[in-house]
Amino acid sequence: MGVKIALLQLDPTVGDLDGNVSMVEKATRLAAEHGAELAITSELVVSGYPPRDLLLDADFVERCAEAASRIDSPIPLLVGTPLPPQGERHLPANGTMRLVPGRKAKVATRKQLLPTYDVFDELRYFEADKAPGILRLSDSLSIGVTICEDAWQHSGLVPADYDADPIEQLAAWQHQGEPLALSVNLSSSPYHLHKEGTRGDVVRAAAATLGHPFLLCNQVGGNDDLLFDGRSLAAWPDGTLVQAPAWCIGVLLVDTDDPSAAKWLPWPDGSCCPECTCVVEQVAAGADPLTPVTGIDLLAAITSGLGDYCRKSGIERIVLGMSGGVDSSVCAAIACRAVGAENVLGLAMPSRHSSAHSLADAEATAEALGMELQEHSIKELHALAEEGLAEELDAGDPVARENVQARLRGMLVMALANARGAMALATGNKSELAMGYCTLYGDMVGGYAPLGDLYKTEVYEVAKELNSEAERFGETPPITDSTLSKAPSAELAPDQTDQDSLPPYDILDGILEAHIEHGLGVDEIAANGHDPALVKDILSTLHANEHKRWQMAPAPRVSNRAFGQGWRQPLAADHSHHD
Amino acid sequence: MGVKIALLQLDPTVGDLDGNVSMVEKATRLAAEHGAELAITSELVVSGYPPRDLLLDADFVERCAEAASRIDSPIPLLVGTPLPPQGERHLPANGTMRLVPGRKAKVATRKQLLPTYDVFDELRYFEADKAPGILRLSDSLSIGVTICEDAWQHSGLVPADYDADPIEQLAAWQHQGEPLALSVNLSSSPYHLHKEGTRGDVVRAAAATLGHPFLLCNQVGGNDDLLFDGRSLAAWPDGTLVQAPAWCIGVLLVDTDDPSAAKWLPWPDGSCCPECTCVVEQVAAGADPLTPVTGIDLLAAITSGLGDYCRKSGIERIVLGMSGGVDSSVCAAIACRAVGAENVLGLAMPSRHSSAHSLADAEATAEALGMELQEHSIKELHALAEEGLAEELDAGDPVARENVQARLRGMLVMALANARGAMALATGNKSELAMGYCTLYGDMVGGYAPLGDLYKTEVYEVAKELNSEAERFGETPPITDSTLSKAPSAELAPDQTDQDSLPPYDILDGILEAHIEHGLGVDEIAANGHDPALVKDILSTLHANEHKRWQMAPAPRVSNRAFGQGWRQPLAADHSHHD
Repeated sequence: MGVKIALLQLDPTVGDLDGNVSMVEKATRLAAEHGAELAITSELVVSGYPPRDLLLDADFVERCAEAASRIDSPIPLLVGTPLPPQGERHLPANGTMRLVPGRKAKVATRKQLLPTYDVFDELRYFEADKAPGILRLSDSLSIGVTICEDAWQHSGLVPADYDADPIEQLAAWQHQGEPLALSVNLSSSPYHLHKEGTRGDVVRAAAATLGHPFLLCNQVGGNDDLLFDGRSLAAWPDGTLVQAPAWCIGVLLVDTDDPSAAKWLPWPDGSCCPECTCVVEQVAAGADPLTPVTGIDLLAAITSGLGDYCRKSGIERIVLGMSGGVDSSVCAAIACRAVGAENVLGLAMPSRHSSAHSLADAEATAEALGMELQEHSIKELHALAEEGLAEELDAGDPVARENVQARLRGMLVMALANARGAMALATGNKSELAMGYCTLYGDMVGGYAPLGDLYKTEVYEVAKELNSEAERFGETPPITDSTLSKAPSAELAPDQTDQDSLPPYDILDGILEAHIEHGLGVDEIAANGHDPALVKDILSTLHANEHKRWQMAPAPRVSNRAFGQGWRQPLAADHSHHD
Repeated sequence: MGVKIALLQLDPTVGDLDGNVSMVEKATRLAAEHGAELAITSELVVSGYPPRDLLLDADFVERCAEAASRIDSPIPLLVGTPLPPQGERHLPANGTMRLVPGRKAKVATRKQLLPTYDVFDELRYFEADKAPGILRLSDSLSIGVTICEDAWQHSGLVPADYDADPIEQLAAWQHQGEPLALSVNLSSSPYHLHKEGTRGDVVRAAAATLGHPFLLCNQVGGNDDLLFDGRSLAAWPDGTLVQAPAWCIGVLLVDTDDPSAAKWLPWPDGSCCPECTCVVEQVAAGADPLTPVTGIDLLAAITSGLGDYCRKSGIERIVLGMSGGVDSSVCAAIACRAVGAENVLGLAMPSRHSSAHSLADAEATAEALGMELQEHSIKELHALAEEGLAEELDAGDPVARENVQARLRGMLVMALANARGAMALATGNKSELAMGYCTLYGDMVGGYAPLGDLYKTEVYEVAKELNSEAERFGETPPITDSTLSKAPSAELAPDQTDQDSLPPYDILDGILEAHIEHGLGVDEIAANGHDPALVKDILSTLHANEHKRWQMAPAPRVSNRAFGQGWRQPLAADHSHHD
């Protein structure tokens, strides 16, 4: 007899316990209305993920557990929450609480594998349990419970190697006579491009070993610099898979007896998508989940990231510089989606080195988006600043002269942002940040960098998708043909183009990606057909610019590894802080 | 029969394996010349501490172990180094290698307790050993070996609570007949104000339990934002203590039979202190180590931090804004000590709101220090910028107007720094950073913030010590009476003083310190006699400004806890990024 389970794919805000709890309650009502017998949340949905150093505050952890225990759900619910240390434990647990109508809320399980690599730092906050959890809902229904990383060791798809495998432990318990109808996994599994395939492998491996359905509920949306794509999943032992939509909140309703009966319940107020047409993706045994089109998935990812960052931080207005280049044009489009075109101000700030098409392209983009554009020339300020600094600029490093312009622009962007109570947006991409082809306190100013984890070639893919979408809706494509076809330029010196200083972006991005995302060294990258001297030069520039990137505003993580994995390189690799 | 042991109190550079190894070799020769029979280094001296994500590179770890194994020492040496994973281990170890002349280098021990709190993140990189180490040097000489945190559980002076206590384990081994003449601890124990007392308690507790001398060798100097004060120690079971000088490299030579025979061997080339007069501090049983004068210790700490940051990063020149206020005046003095007065450029950048004494004070300080001062008025740039922005500035938040000035100054500081290939210095202190009383991309620009972990009241203590030292050497005190006595002011609006916006600094600093260093909440702080409404207001401002501080340049850690302990607060507490 199948069980109807609801996976609550929600978008919690870190620290907003009341808001998160009330979102869970609403989702359980939606699930109950559609016949669900049991609801499962994502990992730490009560605190929001990642709660980071809030977890060092014992009061905060107590308040989370207390908030979890008073959730009012019409059906049995397993909810992810921080739990205060109990018994001989010294640290809180990353755990779950069981809520059954008419019964007292009860701590159910605790996470066993605590990832402490890449963006994860769970051993800083939590103490691990020593066995996987079992949730006994009735005499006839017990389910295995795992939390995120707990399920990953079994697939071998983690950089860490734990001395325990909770999936094997659950399987062993079954062999010893513990009857489990299914197992679940409460996840806050961060997004990176093409992660859907990896997650599918994880749940399939678990279902195959356990011989019963394995269901994974993931968080969705952005919290700080982490993005979560949702895509909650259920797998059956034969490899059949169903997957919830990405980037939407709602409920994935699964009948464990019938994969084809899985349904997506969109959020009632339309915050899933306007007139939601999202459906469950059915993946046959042996097949892979559809690979999303890169431009489409990245556009959704960075829009979700900036939108959530603004909404969750109370940011209602955005100011950004618009050069007519592809980066700032795409940023303007994303900003309009995040806070509404009427709340976005673009600044065209031509200098004596700016070309005529710069302003025309920025104007066309602003008009297509329906946002305000102001022109503030920096010509006079630039001339006056250069006059005062003439002696030092003439004698010194020529880069100083270029940076003066970028910093005057940064000052203007910040002045308008401060005056309007808005957030400035940094428009840089991952390729130029990697190469230090940007100005600290200049074009890098801003509270958020939507393109900070996108290579330049990926920015073009997003730009084209923005245009395609506009065309599909009968609107003017926001990114002009001129913006897309002209040679990228910082326009900080006469007739300058990016390729005066950098290799062509397709070559540069290939080398950067091989090193940053795949960890390859000079020899390995050169073996793939790149010029060894060029590779060496690029990687040493990359490492020398670590400090500059560290000062960057939060950028959403859309690739496997961001620079430095959240940590600065040590001093010995740090030679570029003076620019 | 006593053993003569040399504790090599050195200043390694993270990543500079050759330099670190050669410094160790030089120290062993110095130790041998003075009759040492055995030398001990600080923790991870081969890689330098903290190596952070360099440890994710397996090649780097291999190279460290290889570099350690080829150290040429005339006497037996126990050296701290990363070790590649062995046997069933998956991660590297934080360990030691034993080098005995004429014998093959050999892995000796591995660290057992891996701190993962505050600035520590060792579970990200290392796998722990399950027992403390014993080093058998001869049939008659075995010593117990611990690494940093290994010795702290026993004292109870750590926020973590491990399920193991290596000191008790060593004691148990002794009871079972393992004869240990002494035990050692290889440390990289970061500095905070008044840490000397804590470390004394740790080594005394270990010596008392073990019933033999316990010796701790600590690193000295700055690596990135961490400072290490040296102060290597030896304790005897009766509580007698000897302590090496702070902030100096050299060798502490200890005779385990005779505390009074302990000697400090200064570094031969004078890099300890000019005409080193540093001596070993003898502390009788029952007495505490001398508490250093706050101003003296902080001055040494931040000078060591900036000096090492520049030397290790290849920074030879510094540019900073000088307002005539106490912060920038103290920063100028520290900069002159770090890179030499001839390599420091100060910029006086008066605006229409600047007072006459601002320039006079900056000039007097620059003259006393023997450094260059240039005047670059921002009056015209300011007027021109305001003219272009008039409409928005008139209608908007008044803070925008103030920030324009700070950002024009930031632009000038960076232009001069870029032109000269110098590093800009951020001059802000911890009090104003906590309150957001500073301008992002304005006075916050710079690659390093020497005062970033000093409360304003502590900056005054350092200023007075700078003057006292100058007087003792017959020089002109660099900080003028006017600078010390005038009301602090940002001078961004007519007749503005800090106290228009902030409580008096002695009250503010008391509240901030109670919360940041001691973790007290509103009620607890108010119970100490502060106005509850004021406390609440200050703490909420503090938390709202987390994002701004995160974008700050590295500041040395001189207090127990820096803001956010190295991590940003999550979004929900983050409302201030638009300024």
